[in-house]
Amino acid sequence: MSYNTFGHLFRFTTWGESHGPALGVVVDGCPPGIAISVEDIQRDLDRRKPGQSRFTTQRREDDAVRILSGTFEDERTGGQKTTGTPISMLIENTDHRSKDYSEIRDKYRPGHADFTYHQKYGIRDYKGSGRASARETAARVAAGAVARLVIPEVKIRASLVQIGPHKIDYANFDWDQVDQNPFFCADPKAAAMWEGYLDGIRKDGNSVGAVIEVVAEGVPPGWGAPIYGKLSADLASAMMSINAVKAVEIGAGFEAASLTGTENADEMRAGNAGPYFTSNKAGGILGGISNGDPVVVRFAVKPTSSIITPRQSVTVENENTEVVTKGRHDPCVGIRAVPIGEAMMAVTLADHFLRHRGQTGRDGGVGY
Amino acid sequence: MSYNTFGHLFRFTTWGESHGPALGVVVDGCPPGIAISVEDIQRDLDRRKPGQSRFTTQRREDDAVRILSGTFEDERTGGQKTTGTPISMLIENTDHRSKDYSEIRDKYRPGHADFTYHQKYGIRDYKGSGRASARETAARVAAGAVARLVIPEVKIRASLVQIGPHKIDYANFDWDQVDQNPFFCADPKAAAMWEGYLDGIRKDGNSVGAVIEVVAEGVPPGWGAPIYGKLSADLASAMMSINAVKAVEIGAGFEAASLTGTENADEMRAGNAGPYFTSNKAGGILGGISNGDPVVVRFAVKPTSSIITPRQSVTVENENTEVVTKGRHDPCVGIRAVPIGEAMMAVTLADHFLRHRGQTGRDGGVGY
Amino acid sequence: MSYNTFGHLFRFTTWGESHGPALGVVVDGCPPGIAISVEDIQRDLDRRKPGQSRFTTQRREDDAVRILSGTFEDERTGGQKTTGTPISMLIENTDHRSKDYSEIRDKYRPGHADFTYHQKYGIRDYKGSGRASARETAARVAAGAVARLVIPEVKIRASLVQIGPHKIDYANFDWDQVDQNPFFCADPKAAAMWEGYLDGIRKDGNSVGAVIEVVAEGVPPGWGAPIYGKLSADLASAMMSINAVKAVEIGAGFEAASLTGTENADEMRAGNAGPYFTSNKAGGILGGISNGDPVVVRFAVKPTSSIITPRQSVTVENENTEVVTKGRHDPCVGIRAVPIGEAMMAVTLADHFLRHRGQTGRDGGVGY
Amino acid sequence: MSYNTFGHLFRFTTWGESHGPALGVVVDGCPPGIAISVEDIQRDLDRRKPGQSRFTTQRREDDAVRILSGTFEDERTGGQKTTGTPISMLIENTDHRSKDYSEIRDKYRPGHADFTYHQKYGIRDYKGSGRASARETAARVAAGAVARLVIPEVKIRASLVQIGPHKIDYANFDWDQVDQNPFFCADPKAAAMWEGYLDGIRKDGNSVGAVIEVVAEGVPPGWGAPIYGKLSADLASAMMSINAVKAVEIGAGFEAASLTGTENADEMRAGNAGPYFTSNKAGGILGGISNGDPVVVRFAVKPTSSIITPRQSVTVENENTEVVTKGRHDPCVGIRAVPIGEAMMAVTLADHFLRHRGQTGRDGGVGY
Repeated sequence: MSYNTFGHLFRFTTWGESHGPALGVVVDGCPPGIAISVEDIQRDLDRRKPGQSRFTTQRREDDAVRILSGTFEDERTGGQKTTGTPISMLIENTDHRSKDYSEIRDKYRPGHADFTYHQKYGIRDYKGSGRASARETAARVAAGAVARLVIPEVKIRASLVQIGPHKIDYANFDWDQVDQNPFFCADPKAAAMWEGYLDGIRKDGNSVGAVIEVVAEGVPPGWGAPIYGKLSADLASAMMSINAVKAVEIGAGFEAASLTGTENADEMRAGNAGPYFTSNKAGGILGGISNGDPVVVRFAVKPTSSIITPRQSVTVENENTEVVTKGRHDPCVGIRAVPIGEAMMAVTLADHFLRHRGQTGRDGGVGY
Repeated sequence: MSYNTFGHLFRFTTWGESHGPALGVVVDGCPPGIAISVEDIQRDLDRRKPGQSRFTTQRREDDAVRILSGTFEDERTGGQKTTGTPISMLIENTDHRSKDYSEIRDKYRPGHADFTYHQKYGIRDYKGSGRASARETAARVAAGAVARLVIPEVKIRASLVQIGPHKIDYANFDWDQVDQNPFFCADPKAAAMWEGYLDGIRKDGNSVGAVIEVVAEGVPPGWGAPIYGKLSADLASAMMSINAVKAVEIGAGFEAASLTGTENADEMRAGNAGPYFTSNKAGGILGGISNGDPVVVRFAVKPTSSIITPRQSVTVENENTEVVTKGRHDPCVGIRAVPIGEAMMAVTLADHFLRHRGQTGRDGGVGY
Repeated sequence: MSYNTFGHLFRFTTWGESHGPALGVVVDGCPPGIAISVEDIQRDLDRRKPGQSRFTTQRREDDAVRILSGTFEDERTGGQKTTGTPISMLIENTDHRSKDYSEIRDKYRPGHADFTYHQKYGIRDYKGSGRASARETAARVAAGAVARLVIPEVKIRASLVQIGPHKIDYANFDWDQVDQNPFFCADPKAAAMWEGYLDGIRKDGNSVGAVIEVVAEGVPPGWGAPIYGKLSADLASAMMSINAVKAVEIGAGFEAASLTGTENADEMRAGNAGPYFTSNKAGGILGGISNGDPVVVRFAVKPTSSIITPRQSVTVENENTEVVTKGRHDPCVGIRAVPIGEAMMAVTLADHFLRHRGQTGRDGGVGY
Repeated sequence: MSYNTFGHLFRFTTWGESHGPALGVVVDGCPPGIAISVEDIQRDLDRRKPGQSRFTTQRREDDAVRILSGTFEDERTGGQKTTGTPISMLIENTDHRSKDYSEIRDKYRPGHADFTYHQKYGIRDYKGSGRASARETAARVAAGAVARLVIPEVKIRASLVQIGPHKIDYANFDWDQVDQNPFFCADPKAAAMWEGYLDGIRKDGNSVGAVIEVVAEGVPPGWGAPIYGKLSADLASAMMSINAVKAVEIGAGFEAASLTGTENADEMRAGNAGPYFTSNKAGGILGGISNGDPVVVRFAVKPTSSIITPRQSVTVENENTEVVTKGRHDPCVGIRAVPIGEAMMAVTLADHFLRHRGQTGRDGGVGY
């Protein structure tokens, strides 16, 4: 069962709400003996943190992480290393300014999970949306930072590739640009254009959706499994579990529907280090198993539902009303989803690495 | 772990290869006391069966299912009912014409899982592709037929909505048309156009991709969970686990990336039977939990990789070669994916129904 | 996978070591809407707490628990209630007196997990034994306290029934006596005798084993499942997972091996409220499913391995040595295992209640 | 969830009733490339088969197993090897003599699961007890035979060590004797005495319980995990899941309760190949992790509940009645539990081997 747990061998459980004293994550199944430091975790958390540009919420959360268990001193280095037991990480909620919930307390906000939570649990956690808050994603990012240490040879990066109707031009794609603009965007020209576009959206009190592309290089062939344990199926679940995500694709994705067999199947050639593919329509996954090419996943994030434009809704007493969501909200939640997508890629791959090693005794394919 | 198992409370495990004597599925966790007959299962299997039109493979498989366990006579009706114990279903492989595998025995077919299987397991099951064969999907369809009996109030239907670059016109959408054409297509005009298009593809020895839309009506609010047990995440995994699927979306899906918050968030109104939504961009799922609207999922199937056009590849000895896949193949595997998509929707919903009932003691939302 | 997680629908994950800043537990899958308070948890923790008599370790741990998530204010009562999301509970380690580990740092203590941990993980967490510390059981007790709230109609109690070779006399059994002596013993005469016996053991620098009996009354028929999900199998796993436990039995247990079929099978009679059993050799479980009678489990705890009598051992460099474990240790860890056994009974039953409800839609049997 | 599934990485799912056409098991997660033959499986099944002496039921079941999937030809040897995909095995029920169920159709048999099944599922599968039939154990034995192939360096054997009140004398213990008497008993003198004793029980129309000891030699240190994934906890669950088992112990087991710390903790000495233990009170497991010594488990089987002595019971309509169970029943089901106990040991160890290898990348401990 996986209400709040993700993964099988490398697995983590998150907990906490934005209105409570803290949130956190327990990572279980991490291999022992891996060097780890708070900085390894904090680095990734800082990239997800709100308030880093005018395009993300101005809420102030330090997101300072503490490691409470699962590490021990490494006498050789003086640092810490994992022990193979649960790594519990905790982040305190520091933004405790008292809020006025009277506007939303008795109303369902359109596009939010207010109505469905109430239906499921019979409880309205109207303060900060309970577990539906995007704050939960900080816990994922912490787990993802640990996962990266488990598979250090795999390089995981992500870029925003579309914001509203505006897509990047892959001809301009340069990973080094990702940290040079407020959008985690690998196309500097697109990023420049988006600034003006998103300013307009923000000033209108509106919001907009986005598409994120996550790429993992260095994945050996052999990770994944043929049927319900497909690497692609677990990545789909991983990305779709992120708040506001409505679509996931691997490699050519939906575009593959329009292609013919001659166009779509990546051809192979003999290389010095073994066979290689001349293209990567497959996105690095064939039959649910990694093929050695970069694993490429894209996912779509819907526009922030919290907008200041009035929307029609109903009260918890089933009376018609209007909702205006005030407060400090991201005009495009897709921006902060970039490091979250990286984290979910990392945890999924780390889990499949251990699962593959358990069954086969090998770290990768037979020829590697 | 879920190599060959799907689901948690309603769960099933499939087994078998196309070259072996049989394949099958064990459904575990089914509630007791549900009326069931072989016909209930066979009906769905017959829709998936190959050879029903010139657009699917001419392989002959009767796909006659036997129920080996998990049912007992219902003295009242004279029929059978589920006992709550494992329902084992078996389908014999009857198409045993001796095949010539010499062409592919030592070559990796592009777009196939040949290379990745070999890498993962160190074994080439070159006869019928082992578990990568689409024949495994018969087992899913059998499980899906049982799942439908668990949630009889939910109506699950699917339609092919795109083949190659040709999309349907939703203005023509009519569920009654789905069984009137060889494409399971709800738009009769599109279906008519596709006949000629796909004849051309087939005569060229080529293949093409497709998009399937699956809709579940009658899902009450409350199924699903906020974080990693999101109904949307499990549906994404369910659909992505189908052979050749490369993309999944819920509701507005990738289109949501292009929308603004005012366009995307479904507004609510007070109705006699409780709140209702004036649109369904959400595809029936908010925050991972069903909202009472139809659950709408689309997924893309890549073109059949087995084509008679020669493709560059390598041998298992890493020497350059060419591959031509002879034999009886579907020019568009997406067609037969329609009943498979329905089955995966059914099993996912049945599982979430039981999970929700376990935690809350209710069949649906608090107001239902 | 269940390295540090127990249960399926009602499930919890524990973390933390005795040498770290804190330990804790995340309870997932708890039904929503249940009234809960810190006192509900603290009450059970206080019973497990060390230092309550001269027969348990004099270590000082307040074991003050904080609830960090998963509850929300109940407007009707002013208290808190569960929300159905993860309940994270944290206990700080307050006994931070600096210790001298030089004696055990490079030696394996006989009877301890030192050697096996080193072998498994390649790491010696010689400070407080890492996860092998009995301190982890505080987290279980907290989870068990939540579980009790999920099944309030079930009354779970336990008694020490044997210490060393000295068994209680069931003729004296009186539940009200359990809290009247330092042994959680329902037989006051046995308890009185044990005082002198255990004083002798303690003064000898030795330790001794014990047997605990846990009884759950009010379990309806129908919980459990026939094969690997037997209630008895999960209880066996639950009790055997407690530190130092080496044996578990249900009902007549090992004694059943000596009985004949006429002696062992509990006969049935028709009662006003349905059939009842005239004896309970089964310990409330038939075929893995509860039968409505009290569920009776006994488990054996080995003597504390930390004793001041010198024992032969080896160093981590595989040289012969001797070990004397100084410090404040329980002469009989079985005493504090009493509330732990209750907790494990509670979590197992709460899980099976939800699992049964999920599959059947009923809280208990058909006749209840 | 584990209604009918056991294990995590090496896992299997059983299905089938004794009154149906067949029963079977699907083994998932088996490593690829392991030589396997039907004979490997049949050998173990034949040891469990009824009718091999006058002390087991005279029912006739050939228990001929078929392997339906998961293997492929090994070109080098001409035999078969595992592919890493599900191994489905099927055993037909051949003993189809028509039976008269009128005696038990409307009555609950004391000691049987009739009442609890009815309560749980609302269904009386009065023909052969449904899943409560010991016939399910054939499926476990088949899974166990596969598991043995996964860990060929581990030698798993078992002996009946007690029947009724009569225990073996360990001074006579000789593994070679186990196949020389109808009791799988390593003490030939005890076996000789048991013949007369059990003849008497059988002639009285009675039955008796038994204790089985299972020993696994060659388990390296490091398998298992500290908390809920303890090797001992999983073994307890494995054995308690066998029909009619009421007690499980590891190493000294219940006897450990009577021992002092000086008596119980196995001392260590430096050996040429690393540290070794001078005794094995621990039964090969310390802190839930194997220590390199033989893993020793004992479990108690209650007497067969089907006896021809009349017993008091009730009808399904809650009226007092008497039950006499006619038919061909084992006077001591414990005898046939010997190969079943071996099988459950094998599957538990194979699973822990893969789990350990997944997390650590090693097959055993750091020093091995």
